[in-house]
Amino acid sequence: MRVVVPFAADAPKTRLEPVLSADERSAFARAMLDDVLEAIAETAHEPTVVSTAPLDLEGVDVTVDDRPLTAAVNDRLPRTSHETPVAVVMADLALATPDALARLLEADGDVAIAPGRGGGTNALVVRHPGFRVDYHGGSFLDHREIADEVDASFETIDSFRLGSDVDEPADLVEVLVHGTGRAPATLREFGFELDAGDGRVAAVRIENAASN
Amino acid sequence: MRVVVPFAADAPKTRLEPVLSADERSAFARAMLDDVLEAIAETAHEPTVVSTAPLDLEGVDVTVDDRPLTAAVNDRLPRTSHETPVAVVMADLALATPDALARLLEADGDVAIAPGRGGGTNALVVRHPGFRVDYHGGSFLDHREIADEVDASFETIDSFRLGSDVDEPADLVEVLVHGTGRAPATLREFGFELDAGDGRVAAVRIENAASN
Repeated sequence: MRVVVPFAADAPKTRLEPVLSADERSAFARAMLDDVLEAIAETAHEPTVVSTAPLDLEGVDVTVDDRPLTAAVNDRLPRTSHETPVAVVMADLALATPDALARLLEADGDVAIAPGRGGGTNALVVRHPGFRVDYHGGSFLDHREIADEVDASFETIDSFRLGSDVDEPADLVEVLVHGTGRAPATLREFGFELDAGDGRVAAVRIENAASN
Repeated sequence: MRVVVPFAADAPKTRLEPVLSADERSAFARAMLDDVLEAIAETAHEPTVVSTAPLDLEGVDVTVDDRPLTAAVNDRLPRTSHETPVAVVMADLALATPDALARLLEADGDVAIAPGRGGGTNALVVRHPGFRVDYHGGSFLDHREIADEVDASFETIDSFRLGSDVDEPADLVEVLVHGTGRAPATLREFGFELDAGDGRVAAVRIENAASN
């Protein structure tokens, strides 16, 4: 199994702009990537990062590919049934654990997908040479249809952890509640903490964390 | 195992007010309840609905208890280690499947929780007589702490399906993409459909569905 982790190195996580500066977004995206890579390594697979720009990552194979996500991923999927299967794991799955990833990587289907919120595809395994991804729009349903068109068996991996990609301010709560690695540590360094003041828990930022 | 399904029969799903009328919210809440009950029945467990008001449900045991959720649930948890374990499954887990529920119901922990978004507790199993729930605020972390205080072993069930409670308009997308029962059928009757127009998939309502 080859495990590919696409990473948008330039201007990552723009939808976190309301709560994080550009430098903070970069640092946080990098912390999530580190957590994902460590979880993959603990499943005894060696990840390859496919980054839109050069990236300094110790001990990890990095390939630069500045094409859009769909093209960059499709170029790396198996083309014959003799080729090794390929897993694609998004770099913002900050809650990923070795156990959750193992359920994906050990799935039997020709195509196995861990869906994300909003109809997305957060992680997948491709064992069928006819399958290609299309990440535009509601990719989960599109991918199920593409698998069907090429007669590939389709499996869904039911995981809260793999289903939680971190895109928006509201997603930071999940990182603080369920994350265990560098990503929650980075948020706490930035002054974020959980607040259950009004009955629902939220990630709030203590503006002057250093002076408190 | 006793399986309890709390149901707010009066004014359910108020946070869906921006997109559904009061009658529609009632019908949709009831459709989700039906889906949850059917999924539980398929795991070969008999659910009991604990409803805030009388409810006409064929073939299902209904108890009326108009106390707040925490009190109503705590009154039904085991008080001695000889009592049968109790599962509590929320009535708005519209994506619940027998497989996902089986992973919860067969968990080994003294307390097993399927977390929901925002630090919530969507479903749990209690086998320890000292454990009590507290649904206020970020209940997942509170429940982990309470389990720790009474020396109960704690297990997390990693499920996207059980993690998807349906509270807000944005949650309807999950029902249309991943739901298979009466809940997505009800939304489609109301004129909802998936729209991937701007690149992200959304649940949109065709205002005059009947005239199209």
